[in-house]
Amino acid sequence: MSDGSAVLGLDVGGTTTKALLVATDGRVVHEERRATVPAADPVDGLVAELDRLTVLAAGHGLTVVGAGVVTPGLIEEATGTVRYASNLGWRDLPLRAALQARAGVPVTTGHDVRAAGLAEQLLGAAHGVDDVLLVTIGTGIAAALVSGGRPLAGGTGAAGEIGHAPVRPGGEPCPCGQRGCLEVYASGAGVARRYEARAGQARSAAGVVGRLDEDPVAREVWADATSALADALVTATLLLDPSVVVLGGGLTAAAADLLDPVRAGLAAGLTWRPAPPVHLTRLGSLAGSLGAAAMAMTHVGRSADLAGWRAVPAR
Amino acid sequence: MSDGSAVLGLDVGGTTTKALLVATDGRVVHEERRATVPAADPVDGLVAELDRLTVLAAGHGLTVVGAGVVTPGLIEEATGTVRYASNLGWRDLPLRAALQARAGVPVTTGHDVRAAGLAEQLLGAAHGVDDVLLVTIGTGIAAALVSGGRPLAGGTGAAGEIGHAPVRPGGEPCPCGQRGCLEVYASGAGVARRYEARAGQARSAAGVVGRLDEDPVAREVWADATSALADALVTATLLLDPSVVVLGGGLTAAAADLLDPVRAGLAAGLTWRPAPPVHLTRLGSLAGSLGAAAMAMTHVGRSADLAGWRAVPAR
Repeated sequence: MSDGSAVLGLDVGGTTTKALLVATDGRVVHEERRATVPAADPVDGLVAELDRLTVLAAGHGLTVVGAGVVTPGLIEEATGTVRYASNLGWRDLPLRAALQARAGVPVTTGHDVRAAGLAEQLLGAAHGVDDVLLVTIGTGIAAALVSGGRPLAGGTGAAGEIGHAPVRPGGEPCPCGQRGCLEVYASGAGVARRYEARAGQARSAAGVVGRLDEDPVAREVWADATSALADALVTATLLLDPSVVVLGGGLTAAAADLLDPVRAGLAAGLTWRPAPPVHLTRLGSLAGSLGAAAMAMTHVGRSADLAGWRAVPAR
Repeated sequence: MSDGSAVLGLDVGGTTTKALLVATDGRVVHEERRATVPAADPVDGLVAELDRLTVLAAGHGLTVVGAGVVTPGLIEEATGTVRYASNLGWRDLPLRAALQARAGVPVTTGHDVRAAGLAEQLLGAAHGVDDVLLVTIGTGIAAALVSGGRPLAGGTGAAGEIGHAPVRPGGEPCPCGQRGCLEVYASGAGVARRYEARAGQARSAAGVVGRLDEDPVAREVWADATSALADALVTATLLLDPSVVVLGGGLTAAAADLLDPVRAGLAAGLTWRPAPPVHLTRLGSLAGSLGAAAMAMTHVGRSADLAGWRAVPAR
């Protein structure tokens, strides 16, 4: 039962900003996606966004009691300062402090992928599991670990950068300057680039997956992708021992074409311990903003109400 | 200042059991190492050991108020059941419950490498740091992560098994059945085996390190070892973001011959983030038993006294 209060969850990405208005009883009342507009002062833009959504909530008869804003990049968890977010062009931005000073509602901030991991654990494919590894495979690849029920941020807020793990030492060059990084083979950008280099024709990763039945080059590139991803998951499983692995991000549209070979490769790479179950995200692209909304609930002392939240269907 | 009370720390290994008697003010009063004797009932042997050390403590004028016992293997942290410890021949042993029922002092139990990580963080090379990766390089290779001040055990107590990370996909076979595991190249057993396969002469890993100046085969095998280890640390750093990496275990006797190439390889493998500092253990082979003693302090409600403990010199 709603008491007429709600929280906002904002997931600020390099290209798209997703916003959710969630009643404190867990109903997703409003969802929107907008192009992220680079602003001279990014805090101005976010404050205006929160104000606009608060007015929108009032139109639904809801009072916004808190907001969570999550971003990519290197984030100091203790202070909420974004040390570096390349896709947003931010550096040393004291985001949490600035938003708390200027927004009309209590605000907390965090990391987009870690928020998505939290959401999968609270509401999604890892519901109720304390040790979860979420790997998001989109243009790039990043991971979030929930360990013993707590998100693991690392010493400098940089945990989870599995995309640059050297899964193929001495392998193909990565835009980062290294060779053989996971992203070279398994990210959306990597799959597209490797396909074009071999087939001489530009295709998106989704386009490559769509041609697996008829195109041996597509099959080869995709097999390299899923094999590299499985190897990275072998290492992550040995090191972290997650109870569940959840795959998120745009490439999960490949469904069984992703899940089946990754599960098989992970199992084959582990001799003396069972492989953890691997699931596709249940929250889809809403995972980050749902995690942000959940963080807002905790920030305003309403974490007990999260137990009543239910998984929303993937969009 | 001692109040006349003390704790015991036992580190039960496949070949050696180390025992420490530590006054609650942090003084190491007694240290011993004995061959681990396989017993029909391992709990019998450990209870007898604790009883003997309690009598020994009385001879020093100290009353034992608690004990910590750490072992290798897969350990359920919540219950203290040792699911599987291959080097000890234990399977599904409810160690904590059995010791608590039969020992004359309050006992807690845990994992040897995670205890060593805790000790390095409390007293050693990672003193005061909240996010620590300890990698012990002995006959095998294992890791312990302390994240946000808490040891990370994983969903089934199996976290830290970095020794079987596939750092050289499709590489040389590992006794575990896989190929290219870190242990193949960088463990004491792996270094010895690879040297003998190339040079036709059996040498220990320490013997190989002792010949780096004059023996090109030794140099090649050791370069492979440190390069594989650096690659594993690149992946672990990207995933976990430790503030400090501590190297422990027998191979740390190689000192700069280990540390210098590993530091260089880790730095070279990270493009867009700084490498965490890498240190050799300060506690040496006592790390596990010191961690066990520290766990005993926490178990009996004396964790506040740990602030007064000081690092002991490496033995």
